[in-house]
Amino acid sequence: MDILIRDALVLTQNKNREIMRGDILIEDGKITKVAKSIRGGAEEKIDASGKLAFPGLINCHTHIPMSLFRGYAEGMRLQDWLEKRIWPAEAKLKPKHVRAGSMLSILEMVRSGTTCFNEMYIAHMDELCKSVVEAGMRASVGFGLFDLVRKTDAKEELKNGTSLAEKWSGKSPLLTISMAPHAPYTCSKELILLAKEYARKKNIKFHTHVSETRKEVFDSLQEKGKRPIEYLHSLGVLDDDTVLAHGSWVTKRESILVGKAGASVSHNPVANLKLATGGICPLHEYLEAGANIALGTDGTASNNSHNMVETMKFAHLMQSHLYWDPLRVSIQNVWDFATINGAKALGSNCGSIEPGKEADIVLADLHSANLAPLHDARNLFFSFHPGNISDVFVAGKPILREGKFTELDEAKIIDEAQKGAEDLVGS
Amino acid sequence: MDILIRDALVLTQNKNREIMRGDILIEDGKITKVAKSIRGGAEEKIDASGKLAFPGLINCHTHIPMSLFRGYAEGMRLQDWLEKRIWPAEAKLKPKHVRAGSMLSILEMVRSGTTCFNEMYIAHMDELCKSVVEAGMRASVGFGLFDLVRKTDAKEELKNGTSLAEKWSGKSPLLTISMAPHAPYTCSKELILLAKEYARKKNIKFHTHVSETRKEVFDSLQEKGKRPIEYLHSLGVLDDDTVLAHGSWVTKRESILVGKAGASVSHNPVANLKLATGGICPLHEYLEAGANIALGTDGTASNNSHNMVETMKFAHLMQSHLYWDPLRVSIQNVWDFATINGAKALGSNCGSIEPGKEADIVLADLHSANLAPLHDARNLFFSFHPGNISDVFVAGKPILREGKFTELDEAKIIDEAQKGAEDLVGS
Repeated sequence: MDILIRDALVLTQNKNREIMRGDILIEDGKITKVAKSIRGGAEEKIDASGKLAFPGLINCHTHIPMSLFRGYAEGMRLQDWLEKRIWPAEAKLKPKHVRAGSMLSILEMVRSGTTCFNEMYIAHMDELCKSVVEAGMRASVGFGLFDLVRKTDAKEELKNGTSLAEKWSGKSPLLTISMAPHAPYTCSKELILLAKEYARKKNIKFHTHVSETRKEVFDSLQEKGKRPIEYLHSLGVLDDDTVLAHGSWVTKRESILVGKAGASVSHNPVANLKLATGGICPLHEYLEAGANIALGTDGTASNNSHNMVETMKFAHLMQSHLYWDPLRVSIQNVWDFATINGAKALGSNCGSIEPGKEADIVLADLHSANLAPLHDARNLFFSFHPGNISDVFVAGKPILREGKFTELDEAKIIDEAQKGAEDLVGS
Repeated sequence: MDILIRDALVLTQNKNREIMRGDILIEDGKITKVAKSIRGGAEEKIDASGKLAFPGLINCHTHIPMSLFRGYAEGMRLQDWLEKRIWPAEAKLKPKHVRAGSMLSILEMVRSGTTCFNEMYIAHMDELCKSVVEAGMRASVGFGLFDLVRKTDAKEELKNGTSLAEKWSGKSPLLTISMAPHAPYTCSKELILLAKEYARKKNIKFHTHVSETRKEVFDSLQEKGKRPIEYLHSLGVLDDDTVLAHGSWVTKRESILVGKAGASVSHNPVANLKLATGGICPLHEYLEAGANIALGTDGTASNNSHNMVETMKFAHLMQSHLYWDPLRVSIQNVWDFATINGAKALGSNCGSIEPGKEADIVLADLHSANLAPLHDARNLFFSFHPGNISDVFVAGKPILREGKFTELDEAKIIDEAQKGAEDLVGS
């Protein structure tokens, strides 16, 4: 269905980062025209006067089934959180639970303006992929591999990832599969090398956690004589198809290694604060080094939200705090992290509102108490909340219209998530 | 009108911090009963099954007319922000602008679950007080005094505050007046002493900014030979009727002085981060010292939101970050800061849902994608957003019902705020 969105204030994220009042034409799922006034007969015309249109946000690091554990394990230190709560609950996961958590996360993402995400999870991945495709979301999904945790042979472990890729690659234009070795401290060198080799052969992304905690850095120095990013560099796995989640506890030398490789970093400020990792990702150094910076929420068991606009606010404020300077990382930078940089990290043709791009678009009601008065639309993420969002389109298809889901049964998904959570943790 | 709220999940904030499923009876603006099931014939019965009831949040430090400048001056360092943007715009303020900004802030506070706030502003205070009373909000309001900025005589400057107190004290049960010398670096010693003397005589609160920036601390050491809180202590103005806004750049000795005096600190984490002050308020030390800790947003020109639930999240996460430990300041602590401690700071009989308290109550829809599944209601502030709030009562009067304002004309207030902002900054 062709759609004409009329008279919106458009935060384009195009090359010149224009903000303009105008119309957006969507044909066959793509944006074909953005102009002051577009005449012609699209099947559906949407009056967006008084609304802001912005590119669907891209969440570059999350674990969607974990939303079943949102708020379940609070006020705990990381090791207790994992060993006493999360791992025992995850051991009971069945396909229906993965589906319930995935659908819940997708609801929440859509309601908060996210249209695309980068996923890594460890069980029942077929259910997860099915949920993405059924819901009409855009995602890059990887099977989290960790031979050192599962105590598997590297080649056996690799098959988890390659089987997923073989089964799902090319199945839907919305879904891509990545190779996702969990982290340098949970994967053998052999597994990391095999995973990257496969990713290169298939021309797919490579997604891994790195340098999230200080302990990880010191363990790495002790065991491998190298910091985690130095180690990945020494293995030759850093390149522009690599997405590093976290990368907070890094030296300037490591930020330069990331930049030179053209790799992406998904900064997840809220989860880092919530797990009290103590490290703040040095975005200014990464920017200077030319790294591609994106943003993520991480799973909602450690956030506890999939709200990317909140993550944008945290990202900007934590950088202002880190450098005692609100100018080191600009407001425009933050929009770039959450849109076009995320798209680049995932190799997806979205992240801006301009002709030729996928029509992943969000509309928000500017006539809201928390958004008024309007001085500069770029600044709105500081006061925005998900209740301001009225419409969300993915690949030109309306997922949310006037605050209501077009196809997803919100009440049922919430009920199933509650039931699933009770199954797993007996609350 | 008597109201019976039925079958809510009630986060009481009572002495035992109970969370219970039950009914709340409101008579003559007060909560008269909270129980599993209340029989009887209130005039209005509200079905709150599937909803969370929590005490209206208390914003302990803000400047409501400044919402006209929300998003107007971004990406600037503090001194430029004030001198190039905020002060020139404020110089043009007329009563209608103060009203427009005040009403906009009140709308936003109600929509995000705040029912009471602690205000300091510097112009057209009658309009501000009128707005509070007309809107039916609860507030403590003080005229910001600064003889060193206005270059006035201390006794003359004092009259701004005493006149406001004489005119408005006792006019409405919703409104109290405080004495509000702006800060130790903008007020003479004489003015601070006169203001405290008057506050003690009239038994009203004393609200001041202190130790917000590092520069302020070093200037104070240089000029007065004392750190700012040591200086206020030496003047004898710290007591349990004193509310200190910020108090971030403090020594352990200063936190002990605050605690011994039984004074209150309004921690404003978002504004501190946004203005890149570099200091994180050491709440653990204040807690250990027995200080009464409350939370505030500060004005939305430097936040840019009046969302207190967001402030609760920032407060918890920044403390987890500061101490590399999510347990130093607990989740329950944060609820206390935002409710009963705020009430204590302002001397107001609100902040909990229990018999005898003012009926300042918020209802939120638990059946929301971002709040599910429910494990422990205390954890919800990590994933909450203002769109989840359906009903807000102040002194038993419904201000917001089922997401709609009962009397306030939201569209008109937003339009007037936009016009007011354009007047002042010519955007």
